[in-house]
Amino acid sequence: MERIDDLQNGLKIIQDDAAFCFGTDAVALSHFVTVKRGARVADLGTGTGVIPLLLCAHHAACTVVGVEIQPHMADMAGRSVTLNGLEERIQIVCADLKHAAQRFGKNSFDAVTCNPPYGKAGFTVTGGNQSRDIARHEVCCTLADCVEVAAALLKASGRAAFLCPALRAAELIGLFYRHKLTPKRLRTVHPKAGKKPSVILLEGVKGAREGLDFLPPLVLCKEDGAMTVELERIYAGEK
Amino acid sequence: MERIDDLQNGLKIIQDDAAFCFGTDAVALSHFVTVKRGARVADLGTGTGVIPLLLCAHHAACTVVGVEIQPHMADMAGRSVTLNGLEERIQIVCADLKHAAQRFGKNSFDAVTCNPPYGKAGFTVTGGNQSRDIARHEVCCTLADCVEVAAALLKASGRAAFLCPALRAAELIGLFYRHKLTPKRLRTVHPKAGKKPSVILLEGVKGAREGLDFLPPLVLCKEDGAMTVELERIYAGEK
Repeated sequence: MERIDDLQNGLKIIQDDAAFCFGTDAVALSHFVTVKRGARVADLGTGTGVIPLLLCAHHAACTVVGVEIQPHMADMAGRSVTLNGLEERIQIVCADLKHAAQRFGKNSFDAVTCNPPYGKAGFTVTGGNQSRDIARHEVCCTLADCVEVAAALLKASGRAAFLCPALRAAELIGLFYRHKLTPKRLRTVHPKAGKKPSVILLEGVKGAREGLDFLPPLVLCKEDGAMTVELERIYAGEK
Repeated sequence: MERIDDLQNGLKIIQDDAAFCFGTDAVALSHFVTVKRGARVADLGTGTGVIPLLLCAHHAACTVVGVEIQPHMADMAGRSVTLNGLEERIQIVCADLKHAAQRFGKNSFDAVTCNPPYGKAGFTVTGGNQSRDIARHEVCCTLADCVEVAAALLKASGRAAFLCPALRAAELIGLFYRHKLTPKRLRTVHPKAGKKPSVILLEGVKGAREGLDFLPPLVLCKEDGAMTVELERIYAGEK
């Protein structure tokens, strides 16, 4: 069933319990990416459009194209854009992201965000819910596809920001290099302090020189399970 | 001036204040690497031989070849081997590590360790002390050379364990892929909890499938500056 959720920053988002709902990952990624004033951004696999909405809330004057292959998700995303009066800044397109460079132009974006399908196709167990499977697994595209498309869309010195499971962190770095996206910022995300990271945030700059800013761990929960102060700040959009 | 230091595990090491002395990095790397019983290990740029000594102290029946280009360092390392009665297990060779594969045989080692020169040549300021410069900077070999040699020395499924500054973590991962060393274990090392990592430990397996075990952060010091319990355990050689 559809519901309207409050994004805690004046914006609202339409989601459907039966489909994939956004999580902390999307919030962390939209906070992590470097977006300059007036930047043109593409969000690959935008789902219900949470990343475009958060980018508009937190970054001045940027415009965002959100690409989503699932019509039901893209439709909800489009209606959330209208609900928030952001039609001038966000364009939601229902399309296969693999065709994004032809459609929106090569070397034409300042930044690309992507919270890609997590599991390798045939590697993780899929659950029978097709909408959730597409959002979570490599049913429609692979991690390699996403990186290739991001690199094609970006201008020289443009920034690709990806989130991926820690299990695939090295693979993502290898894919970035293969497509001339030099890893420049990396942050591990940990459910609790001192534990293994669950996911990583990686930003690469097209054609940049070597040199990685390896950031402090982002810890999501305190020992008692409550959000850390830093995660609260990220939800509030504070830098 | 030369002195004899206690490695806290029954072993002793000869070092020289005027040359490069081993630090926590070498101790952490020798603890981090996976060494199976009876393994044949090469240590590239062994310095005073601290890694071979610690590997012999903590891993049953392994044998180690330590390669060091600086005659004065290799000489101290060789005398430390004798001092500890480990001539049967450790061979110190004064040679350019770039020739190690020809000299010791390609595809002939189970594991390779390397605590390579940290700074890029021409990138960091060198200090005028030639012995320290060679140990710390890319005077005699580059990070790329070290990875290439490690890959050549290893058998199929052999393990390369490197330590490098966090600034070069992505570059090291890229070099591992270039030489078919799949990154399998990664650990960040932090001076204090919650801070940026200073260095990383990376283990790659020659020819392995993708899949990274991203370990919890290794924190060196408590807030008051004293060693953490985990670092104390690492110095004691506990697993």
